[in-house]
Amino acid sequence: MRPLRLGMVGGGQGAFIGAVHRIAARLDGHWQLVAGAFSSDAARAHASAAELNVAPDRSYADFAEMARAEAARDDGIEAVSIVTPNHMHAPVATAFLEAGIPVICDKPLTATLPEAEALAETVARTGTPFFLTHNYTGYPLIREAREIVARGDLGRLRVVQAEYAQDWLAEKLEETGQKQAAWRTDPAKSGAGGAIGDIGTHAFNLLEFVTGTQATHLAADLTSFVDGRRLDDNAHILLRLQDGAKGMLWASQIAPGHENGLRLRIYGDKAGLEWSQEDPNRLRFTRLGAPAQWLTRAGAGTGSLTTRIPPGHPEGYLEAFATLYTEAASDLRQPGAAPLLPGIEDGLRGMRFVTSCVTSARNDCAWTAL
Amino acid sequence: MRPLRLGMVGGGQGAFIGAVHRIAARLDGHWQLVAGAFSSDAARAHASAAELNVAPDRSYADFAEMARAEAARDDGIEAVSIVTPNHMHAPVATAFLEAGIPVICDKPLTATLPEAEALAETVARTGTPFFLTHNYTGYPLIREAREIVARGDLGRLRVVQAEYAQDWLAEKLEETGQKQAAWRTDPAKSGAGGAIGDIGTHAFNLLEFVTGTQATHLAADLTSFVDGRRLDDNAHILLRLQDGAKGMLWASQIAPGHENGLRLRIYGDKAGLEWSQEDPNRLRFTRLGAPAQWLTRAGAGTGSLTTRIPPGHPEGYLEAFATLYTEAASDLRQPGAAPLLPGIEDGLRGMRFVTSCVTSARNDCAWTAL
Amino acid sequence: MRPLRLGMVGGGQGAFIGAVHRIAARLDGHWQLVAGAFSSDAARAHASAAELNVAPDRSYADFAEMARAEAARDDGIEAVSIVTPNHMHAPVATAFLEAGIPVICDKPLTATLPEAEALAETVARTGTPFFLTHNYTGYPLIREAREIVARGDLGRLRVVQAEYAQDWLAEKLEETGQKQAAWRTDPAKSGAGGAIGDIGTHAFNLLEFVTGTQATHLAADLTSFVDGRRLDDNAHILLRLQDGAKGMLWASQIAPGHENGLRLRIYGDKAGLEWSQEDPNRLRFTRLGAPAQWLTRAGAGTGSLTTRIPPGHPEGYLEAFATLYTEAASDLRQPGAAPLLPGIEDGLRGMRFVTSCVTSARNDCAWTAL
Amino acid sequence: MRPLRLGMVGGGQGAFIGAVHRIAARLDGHWQLVAGAFSSDAARAHASAAELNVAPDRSYADFAEMARAEAARDDGIEAVSIVTPNHMHAPVATAFLEAGIPVICDKPLTATLPEAEALAETVARTGTPFFLTHNYTGYPLIREAREIVARGDLGRLRVVQAEYAQDWLAEKLEETGQKQAAWRTDPAKSGAGGAIGDIGTHAFNLLEFVTGTQATHLAADLTSFVDGRRLDDNAHILLRLQDGAKGMLWASQIAPGHENGLRLRIYGDKAGLEWSQEDPNRLRFTRLGAPAQWLTRAGAGTGSLTTRIPPGHPEGYLEAFATLYTEAASDLRQPGAAPLLPGIEDGLRGMRFVTSCVTSARNDCAWTAL
Repeated sequence: MRPLRLGMVGGGQGAFIGAVHRIAARLDGHWQLVAGAFSSDAARAHASAAELNVAPDRSYADFAEMARAEAARDDGIEAVSIVTPNHMHAPVATAFLEAGIPVICDKPLTATLPEAEALAETVARTGTPFFLTHNYTGYPLIREAREIVARGDLGRLRVVQAEYAQDWLAEKLEETGQKQAAWRTDPAKSGAGGAIGDIGTHAFNLLEFVTGTQATHLAADLTSFVDGRRLDDNAHILLRLQDGAKGMLWASQIAPGHENGLRLRIYGDKAGLEWSQEDPNRLRFTRLGAPAQWLTRAGAGTGSLTTRIPPGHPEGYLEAFATLYTEAASDLRQPGAAPLLPGIEDGLRGMRFVTSCVTSARNDCAWTAL
Repeated sequence: MRPLRLGMVGGGQGAFIGAVHRIAARLDGHWQLVAGAFSSDAARAHASAAELNVAPDRSYADFAEMARAEAARDDGIEAVSIVTPNHMHAPVATAFLEAGIPVICDKPLTATLPEAEALAETVARTGTPFFLTHNYTGYPLIREAREIVARGDLGRLRVVQAEYAQDWLAEKLEETGQKQAAWRTDPAKSGAGGAIGDIGTHAFNLLEFVTGTQATHLAADLTSFVDGRRLDDNAHILLRLQDGAKGMLWASQIAPGHENGLRLRIYGDKAGLEWSQEDPNRLRFTRLGAPAQWLTRAGAGTGSLTTRIPPGHPEGYLEAFATLYTEAASDLRQPGAAPLLPGIEDGLRGMRFVTSCVTSARNDCAWTAL
Repeated sequence: MRPLRLGMVGGGQGAFIGAVHRIAARLDGHWQLVAGAFSSDAARAHASAAELNVAPDRSYADFAEMARAEAARDDGIEAVSIVTPNHMHAPVATAFLEAGIPVICDKPLTATLPEAEALAETVARTGTPFFLTHNYTGYPLIREAREIVARGDLGRLRVVQAEYAQDWLAEKLEETGQKQAAWRTDPAKSGAGGAIGDIGTHAFNLLEFVTGTQATHLAADLTSFVDGRRLDDNAHILLRLQDGAKGMLWASQIAPGHENGLRLRIYGDKAGLEWSQEDPNRLRFTRLGAPAQWLTRAGAGTGSLTTRIPPGHPEGYLEAFATLYTEAASDLRQPGAAPLLPGIEDGLRGMRFVTSCVTSARNDCAWTAL
Repeated sequence: MRPLRLGMVGGGQGAFIGAVHRIAARLDGHWQLVAGAFSSDAARAHASAAELNVAPDRSYADFAEMARAEAARDDGIEAVSIVTPNHMHAPVATAFLEAGIPVICDKPLTATLPEAEALAETVARTGTPFFLTHNYTGYPLIREAREIVARGDLGRLRVVQAEYAQDWLAEKLEETGQKQAAWRTDPAKSGAGGAIGDIGTHAFNLLEFVTGTQATHLAADLTSFVDGRRLDDNAHILLRLQDGAKGMLWASQIAPGHENGLRLRIYGDKAGLEWSQEDPNRLRFTRLGAPAQWLTRAGAGTGSLTTRIPPGHPEGYLEAFATLYTEAASDLRQPGAAPLLPGIEDGLRGMRFVTSCVTSARNDCAWTAL
């Protein structure tokens, strides 16, 4: 199947999430990056394009021009990824939607609610597809959890506990020039929410995605613990959901010991389940009155999930594998560049191991030289 | 940077490891699959090529022909991946090495030790690069562990405990027509080793890779627990290493409760470390007389590893992300095909969440409707 | 040292917490149970006394009579344990305090706040010692945690997350005649709090015990999820503490998959810590910017705690040991009553194991019969 | 029920395991310590007796005299605990057995196999009860595991993996005057086995206890890693069991990061199970083809075990409780001696918490002062 042509706005040198989007787009072979406005700085935009193997005539310094130009080409992009800071989501998305080009947008949707509502109107009016990368919904066991709830295995929903704890903003990182910290703590770029916008929305989205229900009311205690910080860096929230269920949500970027502690626990009157993003290949499921079970990705007792490798291989297995391929490319481009890459000697060594094992076993487990 | 051109032998419809190699090759964008002999059955080979977007004139039914033809092209492949059953590794690798095409070969190297030795001679004589995908060596924390040992943090090495336990061959799966089980338990295709060849070699390789030392002698007790199975499905091995260290290695494919339980524990006179493939983003490191530490991938206290995402994101994070991109492609190809994919409504919902949080917080945490 | 003489009110046949208090009193040998009003039902009180090896003349059916009689004896009790349902704590404690007998009282203090205040006045006026068994404060690593906070290792306190989750009241157990459930869900016996009184107070007490600070305000959402239940079975609480710290507290008796999930997490501006009662011998401690450490009871890096056994022995080690002593008593009282108790054959077997190991090792690890 | 009268040989000041035996004997109230030869040094023996509340006329400096004297008394001891170093087990046990006094003996049975065999003859000839404290067999979930195997849930046994890893002898502790290390590494006091005798016998005993089967052959690789140590401090052992099962056993006292890492894993053709002494309240049980289950002590799906408290309370719960009782005794003996002990203020605080919760909940979760 032919890969689709993809463009990107943002994600140039020094950015983080753009690279993640590019890997994600490549991984299954359904997309090919062919155009981009990787930076609003023209020099940086073109340097990034060169690095990314994007042709010079499809490297743009202006997103509006990119939208126009790509819409006019026969071989124009078939979708655009928007990976800019939050405040740029709305103008960029609008430009491409108006040009009829489908949008894949990072979250949160926009910096402000009015912008979000205007964007929703644009989507509705243009009819152009719009996707939002609430990426945690893509975990196989999150989808399994959703199915478990949907088929009634938890019974009637009672309590939901969601949390997303990090520690990277425990000190005033935004004053050190760290770019990721700077825009996330700036109301002009991030919007009214700090931790709640950056990570609270993930926890909230996941809670609603898995339960299949919606929160109707909340009571929120937001704090900026770091002196002088203008947006919340910690949030304690009480939730009331449809049909009488209740919940709590904790989002924090100042909790030492947490890297990306996104965790979801759901309890109904028949069973409960727990999942943690830092250990994503296991889902704890307990029917009332029975021992706890650990479901594993693609393991016994799970359904037909989107999964690429057999159970027991953490999904990072693929990255480990990819590292070898990448090193092989490095070594071919510059011999000796990948000293850790296994080669023929390692293969011989393995065969000697097997042969020695068989010899020893045949000799009543006698010591056998390798 | 231009991706390198890659060919593949094996890995057609119904195979497992070929798809893993393709994802790994794509992930960082350094390779492009342009040719293949995906099966020795011509029809299957060409059907696989079509699915994989490989041009018909570069789909081969015979690996030897592929080696000749590709070597003759100006735009011929720059490396070939060999993902066939073990007994075919040697002839295929030899053909490509003789043609001057670098080889990336799945493990174990060959089915027999003489074949392996002959292949090593071919590599040496031709001078063509040869890489072996001992993929577990690519895990970031395995490389961190190797560095910890290399810089002497464990002190003098004393004890190594390695194990690789699975349960998928606990019953006679090879009689059910399951292709993966059939060739792995057939001496003609797998060689003299069953579990020790298939997974014991991984544990053994990892043990030597991380310790940077070599085993000199072993005593092995191999068993075929399943009635009528011709190769070992469980191995208990004592090891003696250079410089007086000792070890144990357990490989099993009949241990209920284990999916891919590859685990390594290493102890020196100053410290010890433990790692488990099913939880690959954590490395337990304990200096004698100090509390145990959990090092995380790219986390505090670790070195400059090959890593693509920040700490706390399990590497499966990328797959979850990729699933959204793949679903976006599906939806664009066929609207409605990806019902779980987040869209504009999810974005609006997130913005309402943020806005409600801020409103509630400003009103002394009053209940606020969403 | 002579053990002190102990009396008990409540804790007769069918009770739970009385037996726990008796074991706790015996464990270190500082107490001897010599008197009791084990039940308000005379027959049951005396039968319980006989079982507990309490002399008939010191078995009482009335707690007030017990207080008078014991206060009058030269060898009267030196303290009394109160292990009745909550609503009886105040009258019983008052009677013994007035008689000058020190009180060890189970928690919560009373059924109502006015009762509690009156009791506090009685304690102050009589000057008689009064102890409350907030037993979780006795865990060695809880005391370690308190010291860690007290010496400033967490820095300035920011966030506290406390929870106590159970599932035993997920269904309407109080209607089945289960005595423990019946009084706990009855406002007349338990007071105004259901889950918050029974287990929420534990989490709250522990939070203040470890942090050494106090909550000043709370906002609470209490729910009775089980139809017809008169007291809360789930509580979601926001907390504000002195000096600007904030917290959340979740108490639930309807969360399937939780037995006694008491868990405490505390974050300051320099470090964070986590502890779970179901895994009480480990304390996770993470300084900002350093790898997480797992402190173990009496292990490396911990202070001089109240601890009875070396690190790595879970404290249940003592119970396992005690089981053997109890079975030895059973066997001596009735030979053959303890079939699992190890004996001389097990000892011989162990010696043969050692001898065979040494023999095998001396013969180059040759197989040696046992 | 009247407690039985207990004597003890060994366990005086400076000893470790004697105190553990005394707690174990006290815990369920079935024993009362009334006599002892706590040391072969008379002064130390009598000082220890005084501390332990043993009457002076029943404090002995010579175990043989103790056996004679106690056998002659009407109120003589009904059993004796032997908690000396290994080489004294045989002579002491013999003296008491010959005097008709039942023996509770620490493990391993003796220092040498001939001694053990002679002792077995004495037991047989005298008919006096003899118990060996293989204490790990007393864990509730170990007994559950034994029942699981016995009722055939694992199917036919195939593989057993046992290990007991410690790190306290990683350096030459025996040269520092540490008494526990000194006798354990001295062949004259410990016998032919070092780590295999001290902890290997525990792992071996547990393996046979749980499986209900016996090892028939072993191949052992023993090492003394610490320079100059005369007994093994690390053992790698292959096992062959009855009916074709096989096993491995690792015992080590030089593995940094391990405190008391006793671990047992058992696999049959239908299911597998795993248990670790450092996390003794959980047993992992996996039927082939089903998700892993975690059985908890006294939890759902377990049988009628010897257990003192409800599930979810780790057994250390009792020690935490006991600490409060012990501190209450301290405070009564010397007011102010137990500053951490909860009292009336803590009780009031808890009641204020409950009352505030109820008030807040009734006011739509309004913030309420405590």
